[in-house]
Amino acid sequence: MGDNVSIYEQGLEKNAANYAALSPVSFLKRAATVYPDKVAVIHGDRRITYREFRDRVSRFASALTKRGIGKGDTVSLFAPNVPAMLEAHYAVPLIGAVLNSINTRLDAPTVAFILDHGESKLVISDRDLNPVMKEARAQMVSPPPVIDIDDVLADGGELIGEAEYETFLLEGDVDYPWSLPDDEWQAICLNYTSGTTGNPKGVVYHHRGAYLNALGNSVEFGLSADAVYLWTLPMFHCNGWCYTWAVTAVAGTHVCLRKVDPALVFPMIRDHKVTHMCGAPIVLTMLIHAPDDQKCTFPQTVKMVTGGAAPPSAVISNMQKMGFRIIHMYGMTECYGPSTVCAWQDDWDGLDEERQAVMAARQGVALVTLEEQRVVNSETMENVPADGKTIGELVLRGNTVMRGYLKNGNATAETFAGGWLHTGDLAVMHPDSYVEIKDRSKDIIISGGENISSLEVEEVLYKHPDIMEAAVVASPHEKWGETPSAYVTLKPGSDGKVSADDVIAYCRENMAKFKAPTKVTFGPLPKTSTGKIQKFVLREREG
Amino acid sequence: MGDNVSIYEQGLEKNAANYAALSPVSFLKRAATVYPDKVAVIHGDRRITYREFRDRVSRFASALTKRGIGKGDTVSLFAPNVPAMLEAHYAVPLIGAVLNSINTRLDAPTVAFILDHGESKLVISDRDLNPVMKEARAQMVSPPPVIDIDDVLADGGELIGEAEYETFLLEGDVDYPWSLPDDEWQAICLNYTSGTTGNPKGVVYHHRGAYLNALGNSVEFGLSADAVYLWTLPMFHCNGWCYTWAVTAVAGTHVCLRKVDPALVFPMIRDHKVTHMCGAPIVLTMLIHAPDDQKCTFPQTVKMVTGGAAPPSAVISNMQKMGFRIIHMYGMTECYGPSTVCAWQDDWDGLDEERQAVMAARQGVALVTLEEQRVVNSETMENVPADGKTIGELVLRGNTVMRGYLKNGNATAETFAGGWLHTGDLAVMHPDSYVEIKDRSKDIIISGGENISSLEVEEVLYKHPDIMEAAVVASPHEKWGETPSAYVTLKPGSDGKVSADDVIAYCRENMAKFKAPTKVTFGPLPKTSTGKIQKFVLREREG
Repeated sequence: MGDNVSIYEQGLEKNAANYAALSPVSFLKRAATVYPDKVAVIHGDRRITYREFRDRVSRFASALTKRGIGKGDTVSLFAPNVPAMLEAHYAVPLIGAVLNSINTRLDAPTVAFILDHGESKLVISDRDLNPVMKEARAQMVSPPPVIDIDDVLADGGELIGEAEYETFLLEGDVDYPWSLPDDEWQAICLNYTSGTTGNPKGVVYHHRGAYLNALGNSVEFGLSADAVYLWTLPMFHCNGWCYTWAVTAVAGTHVCLRKVDPALVFPMIRDHKVTHMCGAPIVLTMLIHAPDDQKCTFPQTVKMVTGGAAPPSAVISNMQKMGFRIIHMYGMTECYGPSTVCAWQDDWDGLDEERQAVMAARQGVALVTLEEQRVVNSETMENVPADGKTIGELVLRGNTVMRGYLKNGNATAETFAGGWLHTGDLAVMHPDSYVEIKDRSKDIIISGGENISSLEVEEVLYKHPDIMEAAVVASPHEKWGETPSAYVTLKPGSDGKVSADDVIAYCRENMAKFKAPTKVTFGPLPKTSTGKIQKFVLREREG
Repeated sequence: MGDNVSIYEQGLEKNAANYAALSPVSFLKRAATVYPDKVAVIHGDRRITYREFRDRVSRFASALTKRGIGKGDTVSLFAPNVPAMLEAHYAVPLIGAVLNSINTRLDAPTVAFILDHGESKLVISDRDLNPVMKEARAQMVSPPPVIDIDDVLADGGELIGEAEYETFLLEGDVDYPWSLPDDEWQAICLNYTSGTTGNPKGVVYHHRGAYLNALGNSVEFGLSADAVYLWTLPMFHCNGWCYTWAVTAVAGTHVCLRKVDPALVFPMIRDHKVTHMCGAPIVLTMLIHAPDDQKCTFPQTVKMVTGGAAPPSAVISNMQKMGFRIIHMYGMTECYGPSTVCAWQDDWDGLDEERQAVMAARQGVALVTLEEQRVVNSETMENVPADGKTIGELVLRGNTVMRGYLKNGNATAETFAGGWLHTGDLAVMHPDSYVEIKDRSKDIIISGGENISSLEVEEVLYKHPDIMEAAVVASPHEKWGETPSAYVTLKPGSDGKVSADDVIAYCRENMAKFKAPTKVTFGPLPKTSTGKIQKFVLREREG
């Protein structure tokens, strides 16, 4: 002990009593200890208590090890929101393996690419999705073995695997010992981006980030042991935005849902006394425009997080009228889902509803567990002025940012340039420090040298009483370079009520005239597997 | 890249974008960004917004560095719950220094011991406490310099320092740059145990543990941005059980309070719309027995955490009648304050009030951020049976356990024997996995070979309609070895209503006869500086 060593660096080392790796697996261990007989999972008529949840996870983990799977091995799940999918979020990390939840809307070649690139050792696949899985495996040189999930609520499909999931569980030992990872930086999940161009990239999460994002979301979303969480968000989507873990952290109840069908969602909210749910804006739109006979009322207010794209303000206020309180968060696969939140300010209470919705539709501020967010000039990494006008790139940093892209050092280095996660989203910083995304860089329309935000035009279109969905892209124009072209879906019953000229006239009345679309096309919109509108398809149509 | 290296260990390293040291200092940075104009601190007529809070902390940190204080240096605070004390919880760690909050009820020799042992470089001391500080410094060979807090709400005292706190702040730069510690394991606080025997021991906390315990407590206590937290708990007590940081993490409002006086507490709850507070059981007793003209009603339910000793069930139900919802947590200096919670179970709703109070008075289960708790045979470290009867020692482990005792390797090693924090509390594990503390080891009374829990006897005494406070210790006895001796304070107005024989007869009716006290002494009880009853003083009286 030299004289120069601080007194605080002598004899105060880490040991088994005062240091444990942060891992969301600990949440289940605790919930099963404290609330063994509480319903952890509801799936159709089935109820799984926290004791059973833990025991099933123990068997699952043990069965994996008996098949030779261990630390650093990838296990893929191809399933809707069923108990097996939730259980995989604990069993796979418990043995140090890496959970690869595959987007269920992907086609066979993409699934084959993911299984191959992620070096998957085992696939657990739902019978409904097996036709795609079968085709994907047929395209692979050495496809991984399959365990089937023969869910009673599945519609059809087929069984293609070595064993059924429930039988597979019985291979495992219910007394399998639980232990924490050697290092909280160890990989926990591998989530492929939906990638509008090129091959999907494999985003790697670690135990520490999953633990922290789950806790941060619990605080921000006000989760407690009373929470009843309805799974309207796919669990394959950034691990259900980490709510697969957050709900268990507070020992709430998970209500499974294979498919977002308003005819199921409304009665489930009422019957299970749902308190919390999440979903992309498309889910909100589906619920708002559900036929009246599918809707039902419920006495509680349901807190609902939405994100992925800015919800149009009309959508927020319509949801509130139906009994939902909308919380707008923002995130992406690279940052474990929700990382910023449009935190409500007391003085917004005094604003009119319209103005409130405008404030609430912004992407907002960093969650408590995200270290920092900025809007910068991507070249210089200098902050743009906080004037609500100057467009820059939204960049993030903190413990809830991915480790990087699997086997893709170049993309990792590019995304982390300058020590920040580059989101690729173009945003402004408002004077109140709230971020608002104006566009993906490629969604800016440059007309006569002026930048037009396609989101801004869409925001106005969504307020039109007959319009259900809208997407605006650039259309090449001889004189102006580009002009906005709008693709629009009308509400049920509104067909034929409005013409393209009506819509253009409406836009010219409600925005700077140069921003108004010069073309309007009616019809259904192309969507990605995660429900995002595929603007690149529309752009191709514009040539 | 060798073939044997996992794909997850290639090119996925920590960097500035995806790794940040966990530090509670980040909570203030965020709160000031998101809620700059919100009231962060109320102190008398004064209001400090989050922007001002941050700016004052920046100046404080800068002023410290200008006086040569830096990483690893100890800065002592000797103050009641005033803004300077709260600000120190951010300014001192911000520069990598270590905050040493000294119990304001200690005497001069003990304060001198702490300043000397902790190698304090600077003391910030409240004028009311300066007579003690002056005496303490007079006993030291090289006493640290003093900054006075000349609080307008102070009663008297004197100024003894080089500068007054507000002037000292002006020495600092409001633009002082904020940075995170190099390592989240770095020391953040040094808290001395109250130590009933021998010299106090210096418990060292780290940034990681403070961050995690603040988040875990936020989740468990249901804190949100609406929280108004009244400081009935001393901030010097395990850093206010980490609520100095937790309240800021959710950007709630801190309401300062120099002294727990029911005449102040009740109107403050009403006027500031207090939602949350904490305090030792003695605070509950004070509030319950306050004169009627000091009490006032309030429309909200105030959530109140209590701990430190098991609150008698009569106290819990009396508090609930006044509008408080009591949450029972347990902890000690060595584990950052609250580490376990008596989490409410839905099926307790169906129990009668008496039985509910019995369930709720237990120490309960691990908080979500504590890794594990067990009740063990201290020799073998084997679990005792979960039968609610077999007594063992409560041991804890996890990230919210101290680094160790400063400059006391032997005590550190002893406390961490076998890789667990030994609490020294004797407890049983109930079949529902809830822990109940039966006694400190020295508080067990052994009578005729039977163990008698002094807490159990006290629990019965607290239910007597005329008894306000009770403490039971062993009294030497020729035949039985030891018998229980009760020390009792009667409620205001009950003096002379009951005799010692009445109390003994009451006990014999309400517990196994061998457990009933054989002696009853009336009068005020000796208390430690943190309000705990000093049983060792009573034991000495028994000889």
